[in-house]
Amino acid sequence: MEAADIRFMQMAMQQAREAETLGEIPIGAVIVCQSLVIAKAHNQTEMLHDVTAHAEMLALTAAANFLGSKYLKDCDLYVTVEPCPMCAGALYWAQLRKVVYAAPDHKRGFSVLNKALMHPKTQVIGGVMEQEAKMLMTDFFRKKRKN
Amino acid sequence: MEAADIRFMQMAMQQAREAETLGEIPIGAVIVCQSLVIAKAHNQTEMLHDVTAHAEMLALTAAANFLGSKYLKDCDLYVTVEPCPMCAGALYWAQLRKVVYAAPDHKRGFSVLNKALMHPKTQVIGGVMEQEAKMLMTDFFRKKRKN
Repeated sequence: MEAADIRFMQMAMQQAREAETLGEIPIGAVIVCQSLVIAKAHNQTEMLHDVTAHAEMLALTAAANFLGSKYLKDCDLYVTVEPCPMCAGALYWAQLRKVVYAAPDHKRGFSVLNKALMHPKTQVIGGVMEQEAKMLMTDFFRKKRKN
Repeated sequence: MEAADIRFMQMAMQQAREAETLGEIPIGAVIVCQSLVIAKAHNQTEMLHDVTAHAEMLALTAAANFLGSKYLKDCDLYVTVEPCPMCAGALYWAQLRKVVYAAPDHKRGFSVLNKALMHPKTQVIGGVMEQEAKMLMTDFFRKKRKN
């Protein structure tokens, strides 16, 4: 695990915390290109009433807008929870260099269905700041159930 | 195959033709709720420089905006080519009632990777107006290769 991975994951975690304060499922993502953060996003499915508004999808669109290119071959994505099949499918098309996630998703994580959902050229790393991301999710759903 | 399926698929095909005139991969989609077309879209990945701008994704977002609901349980999607894993993943989250596609995609169709990418409650029908959709795609890529 590299120091840069932790630094960028902390930024994704900050995005997740912002989602939480807005009542969104606390998942955040950042996209990095040549050590520069070019996109930050958090889950917005509730506010936008849109199942496609996952942090990764919004970050992908923002990064593509920034670069003016739909392929993100030199980019790395940091996300606080393992991408779902939709997001893995989007990351496949964008052909990212690296995808780093914190907490695994044993229910709807892409790797549960098929690891080949991610592009073969994309390096995938799980478990960076796993505990923090897990705790954010667990606390969120515990509070939800109480309400 | 019902008459309504053909009627709605013809609308999706019209969207695909519009995509073609704009230099986009000719794939179109419509979403129908209680016999009413509530969203029409075609692939816009080139114009938007965005791999997530598939016809299905744009139609999902438009339909959710129209209904003010992220779940589309009473809705049917008609699309001219079999959805990719990203789109199947999105359709899973939206929990559509029915997905009807025209041409199969033997390379990146969701069913090649895992049929469970689609929601178990979603009825999936392939092959409605298959030849027309195939011809649109074949012609498009043949012209592309000539240029």
